[in-house]
Amino acid sequence: MTAEPFRIGLLGHGTVGRAFAELLDERTDAIESEVGLRPEVSGILTRSRGDFDDILERSDLVVELMGGIDPTREYVLRALDSGRHVVTANKQLLSQHGEEVFDAARRGGVQLRFEGAVAGVVPAIRVMSETLAAAHIERVHGIVNGTTNYILSEMARTGASYEEALAEAQRLGYAEADPTEDVTGKDAAAKMAIIARLAFNAAVRLDQVSYEGIERLTADDIEYAKELDLSLKLIGSAERIDSGVAVHVYPAFLYADHPLASVGGAFNAVTIESPAITEITLSGPGAGGIQTASAVLGDVISAMIPPPSLVPPAVDIPLITDTEFSFYLHLEVDDRPGVLAQVAEILGLQGVSVKSVVQKGLGGEARLVMVMHPVLESKFRAAVDLISRLDFVREPPRVIRVIEETF
Amino acid sequence: MTAEPFRIGLLGHGTVGRAFAELLDERTDAIESEVGLRPEVSGILTRSRGDFDDILERSDLVVELMGGIDPTREYVLRALDSGRHVVTANKQLLSQHGEEVFDAARRGGVQLRFEGAVAGVVPAIRVMSETLAAAHIERVHGIVNGTTNYILSEMARTGASYEEALAEAQRLGYAEADPTEDVTGKDAAAKMAIIARLAFNAAVRLDQVSYEGIERLTADDIEYAKELDLSLKLIGSAERIDSGVAVHVYPAFLYADHPLASVGGAFNAVTIESPAITEITLSGPGAGGIQTASAVLGDVISAMIPPPSLVPPAVDIPLITDTEFSFYLHLEVDDRPGVLAQVAEILGLQGVSVKSVVQKGLGGEARLVMVMHPVLESKFRAAVDLISRLDFVREPPRVIRVIEETF
Repeated sequence: MTAEPFRIGLLGHGTVGRAFAELLDERTDAIESEVGLRPEVSGILTRSRGDFDDILERSDLVVELMGGIDPTREYVLRALDSGRHVVTANKQLLSQHGEEVFDAARRGGVQLRFEGAVAGVVPAIRVMSETLAAAHIERVHGIVNGTTNYILSEMARTGASYEEALAEAQRLGYAEADPTEDVTGKDAAAKMAIIARLAFNAAVRLDQVSYEGIERLTADDIEYAKELDLSLKLIGSAERIDSGVAVHVYPAFLYADHPLASVGGAFNAVTIESPAITEITLSGPGAGGIQTASAVLGDVISAMIPPPSLVPPAVDIPLITDTEFSFYLHLEVDDRPGVLAQVAEILGLQGVSVKSVVQKGLGGEARLVMVMHPVLESKFRAAVDLISRLDFVREPPRVIRVIEETF
Repeated sequence: MTAEPFRIGLLGHGTVGRAFAELLDERTDAIESEVGLRPEVSGILTRSRGDFDDILERSDLVVELMGGIDPTREYVLRALDSGRHVVTANKQLLSQHGEEVFDAARRGGVQLRFEGAVAGVVPAIRVMSETLAAAHIERVHGIVNGTTNYILSEMARTGASYEEALAEAQRLGYAEADPTEDVTGKDAAAKMAIIARLAFNAAVRLDQVSYEGIERLTADDIEYAKELDLSLKLIGSAERIDSGVAVHVYPAFLYADHPLASVGGAFNAVTIESPAITEITLSGPGAGGIQTASAVLGDVISAMIPPPSLVPPAVDIPLITDTEFSFYLHLEVDDRPGVLAQVAEILGLQGVSVKSVVQKGLGGEARLVMVMHPVLESKFRAAVDLISRLDFVREPPRVIRVIEETF
């Protein structure tokens, strides 16, 4: 039995468009088995190729990744008016013509999803519009521009000037040749307008959001921040004040215990505050072809599944109990020649490789603290068991796992 | 025109049950205007009061907050079999009898939602099952027990022993009189079994998850961690290894740049890793009456809305542009008597109150760095404008906002 097709018209075939088509291809079987429909790209429109009417005719859903307002706005409106679901990552369109587009979706009784327009792979829109229907959101603070967060993180890490850090970001592809939209805060302002719309149901447009950028920040500012244990971030804020809302973008110092203070590099993050939830913070990589594509595909799948919450039947997957870890090993030993050599020999015989070791003398005793490279737990435990029986080991060895950030 | 009622049968009326009923009451109008149905509690069952059959008869959805296996398991199965949606926060039931319950939901064609069972208000289940349908999840690392995270954070912050930190947690209500389930890692293991089920579609049961707790950790371990710039957390991990999965709970050192390293206090957090998304981290308060209730209510609302993604019409909310901030003010001035007094006087006249000030002499010049208490931006800008005209101010004042963690 072949599943019914679910036809996707793709508008735009740049970095994100191509990444989307590839990711969809890779996930088609998995999606079919979960949803019961087989997604397929039924047509691709670029500025130079394809016919919109033809693609619309052959689509159940339109993915809009062309960007810009013209002719995209018309395409999106026509798709919604003709009863097609739309998934878009177009922050310009939504922050400048949001109400028109939202109205069309309601009128057409179809889904309009736009997770990819706001915070890369971070599911800010989904969490605000679904989970938080239960809560009255008071405030959202966001780091919604990866370029500026990368630049500020580099300034803090290396002491570089703004100009130096920008040049490095451009070299690595985190900033465009013309970085104006990012560094002035305008990109973040568009995203905060969309966030405010969802958080408060207030029709906020980009031209109503005041924004300041990071161009005038100095290494000196960051030096002071460090002295005071603050971190400097470009923050978007949207909050209720009495019966109104306020939306701004500005550089701000964050105290070290603020959940956004530790968000470094080209990451995005959003903190949502409400009395009923206290606060939720979501973080992850900001825009990037594959990350935005995965947010877009997530929206497509949601549009395919009207009741989305059935747990699919379990599949048969073996449960593995002996796995690799990095380990920390702490030994209290007699301080005499050959101790480290014997410990190292046992570890080596079991295939355990030492990453770092610190030995401290304490009178006639000594303390060995070692961190290992990843190794199968059974091998490491066997080595520790042997080590614990050595006559110079004074106390039971202490073992704790170590987790490294892998990205 | 009155909206149709949506009838909720409530099983259990303890801390979370009461918080749920209160929160629902508070949000009823907002939910009705968003969803078009009016939610109401149609019956409450406790161990001593109410009749299950009667409540089932009068419900569209059952919220199960009794906990435990018996008689809860039977109630949940009967509700699903008779075509009622079920929302539960019962980690015991799902980690021990998950397949039976998931099968019943699929058979009944009804929704089964359980966000509140896993990580308090953190929407881990929703994000894994909806957003990440687009991505092949490779690994989930979680801090899913607030009690142990609080204890470890206190040990790190104050140098306290495990016993002292546990006693403090009990005093503040973060740990129960009998903390066994939490400190042994068993609570976290149940939650990781549920997470693994959702992340990998593998039928993992609590009795298949190996777990270690935090009872044998010492202040010494934490002292070493600090020296090495590591933080010590109770980590739940679920990961794919070749064609299988491995699920563990254990204390682990995290490098400072790991997204879970900075999650302090009674918070929960989950990091989801996949090639297509790199990683997403979600964090927020762990279990608490109101927080769990808001997760449960979020699930109820999702079950009420079959196509959940229409943006509701915007309502008329004024946009406020002049708002309160804390400000940092950096002044380069001549180093002569009366400078600080004049600056302070102008600030005071504009109603700006100084929180902290540092003055540094630099030869004949000086640098004043001040942080203000929150003040309306217009007042602060007016003060800075006046200050910038003082003859001893050598460079344009530098102004940056400061954000404090409010919880």
